[in-house]
Amino acid sequence: MAVNPFGSRLTDAIRSVGTPLCMGIDPHLSMMPKLFGDVSTTASPSTIRAIEDFSMACLEMARGRVAAIKPQAAFFEAQGPDGMHVLARLGRAAIDAGVLVIMDAKRNDIGSTNAAYADAWIGHDAPFPSDALTVNAYLGLDTLDPLLARADQQGAGLFVLTRTSNPGAGDLQDLEIDGAPLFHHLAAGLAPLAAARVGEGGLSSLGIVAGATWPEEARTLRQILPSAPFLVPGFGAQGAGAAQALAGLTSGPDGPEGGLVNSTRGLIFPADAADASSISAWQTAIGDAIEASRTALGNA
Amino acid sequence: MAVNPFGSRLTDAIRSVGTPLCMGIDPHLSMMPKLFGDVSTTASPSTIRAIEDFSMACLEMARGRVAAIKPQAAFFEAQGPDGMHVLARLGRAAIDAGVLVIMDAKRNDIGSTNAAYADAWIGHDAPFPSDALTVNAYLGLDTLDPLLARADQQGAGLFVLTRTSNPGAGDLQDLEIDGAPLFHHLAAGLAPLAAARVGEGGLSSLGIVAGATWPEEARTLRQILPSAPFLVPGFGAQGAGAAQALAGLTSGPDGPEGGLVNSTRGLIFPADAADASSISAWQTAIGDAIEASRTALGNA
Repeated sequence: MAVNPFGSRLTDAIRSVGTPLCMGIDPHLSMMPKLFGDVSTTASPSTIRAIEDFSMACLEMARGRVAAIKPQAAFFEAQGPDGMHVLARLGRAAIDAGVLVIMDAKRNDIGSTNAAYADAWIGHDAPFPSDALTVNAYLGLDTLDPLLARADQQGAGLFVLTRTSNPGAGDLQDLEIDGAPLFHHLAAGLAPLAAARVGEGGLSSLGIVAGATWPEEARTLRQILPSAPFLVPGFGAQGAGAAQALAGLTSGPDGPEGGLVNSTRGLIFPADAADASSISAWQTAIGDAIEASRTALGNA
Repeated sequence: MAVNPFGSRLTDAIRSVGTPLCMGIDPHLSMMPKLFGDVSTTASPSTIRAIEDFSMACLEMARGRVAAIKPQAAFFEAQGPDGMHVLARLGRAAIDAGVLVIMDAKRNDIGSTNAAYADAWIGHDAPFPSDALTVNAYLGLDTLDPLLARADQQGAGLFVLTRTSNPGAGDLQDLEIDGAPLFHHLAAGLAPLAAARVGEGGLSSLGIVAGATWPEEARTLRQILPSAPFLVPGFGAQGAGAAQALAGLTSGPDGPEGGLVNSTRGLIFPADAADASSISAWQTAIGDAIEASRTALGNA
């Protein structure tokens, strides 16, 4: 591998396509357009084919329009090993197409087990190929070591779950320690690791997940982690507007950068795509949804 | 499905085999006995076959000798989708053999995504069949809802990561809030959920992971969670002795119960198994290793 560090490649991608928008690819069976076939039976050949066709069609629409895709591992795992084959092929296809792929698998374990997760998920040559992986650090900062080592070697990135967008996010993340919530302590622990991984363009390859529903907190996190890329879920269907979603990002020469604003349902399951009668009608609906989100982020 | 609740089945299994010992099945390529074949190339047919033969041979030795097996998902994922096929077949084979299977996948996400993980991992009919799943609650207690709903419906169990056995476990888990460490607050949040799931025999189907290297903390956790099963990693190769490992368990009519004490390397990679020249020599080495651990736990 001789790729540039993830932080540099992320800035390049955002500037090249002109948006920090990221497309979540979560093949919810209950929302799949009928166009892609019968998904009534878990892990059946028809369901696997529908998920693959749908995911690849989403990737094709993502290319040149968004800065990255973010497949959610859970929806592929739910279809068993054959679903995992689809996820592996999607990651490979994204890399071949020059689209950054963030594997949203939120993996975490201790020591040598995390080295096995690194084998599985980090870098272009992994069985589940990626440019970056989402990870959980509840088990301790030492557990990041094997993941960081692999990411550094592969020019890949990590996004550590720090402040999530769900209603119960605060149960642990907000508990106050010495006058600051837990997630600030986590961010402070990550700060030197992020600062040590800043590439050309000023962005680190070690980032965080910071939910769009908490813009004040995103601004505070940006002070703690000035160079870290923020992966911001919760834009659109999860309820956050563009200004909220961009709160933790930075200002570049052409617009917001310094992270990714993810939208899933708003981009891949817009209302007028559900009953599309042809691929071209579906593509038009997805293209319009992407354009609307790009515009919202650009005008915020 | 009409199986008894996991808590009841776990107590039955411990009493039936006479030990709370659990066999971790982590096919580390670097430790695989040569007997099982060439594992030099990731995800090659030879490597996949070796992992399957090894895992199934471990299961055969586990049957009737330990209370459960605990496959570590990371080592199967590291071999890509074909490795995940092996994990699925191992889970199925364990259930068919009447051996409890704890899928150690430490999954976690929010809302509908966790429902997809539940589809993938919880219950005998899941693509990756299990009796219980390890999960992470950093994202908030609300994220457990879809996992608990599935587990309740399937008679399955969950083990929530609470206090792990790694050196850096305290980075977040020990941060002190209102005079008590974070992991106590998590345990207190789990207490009503565990109390609501107590089956015949007095054990809940909602448990925790509590590392064997912290016996004082395990005793405190037992006070907070009197009926929760404890999954205790870190016995043996990770450095904890039998008395430490049993600190959080309870006393049953025939010996310790109320949880599982896991050993991986000590059971599946004992020194004299590495160069075994035949399956029967390997089986003798594994059988001796299991017997030694059973004895250590029985005499502690």
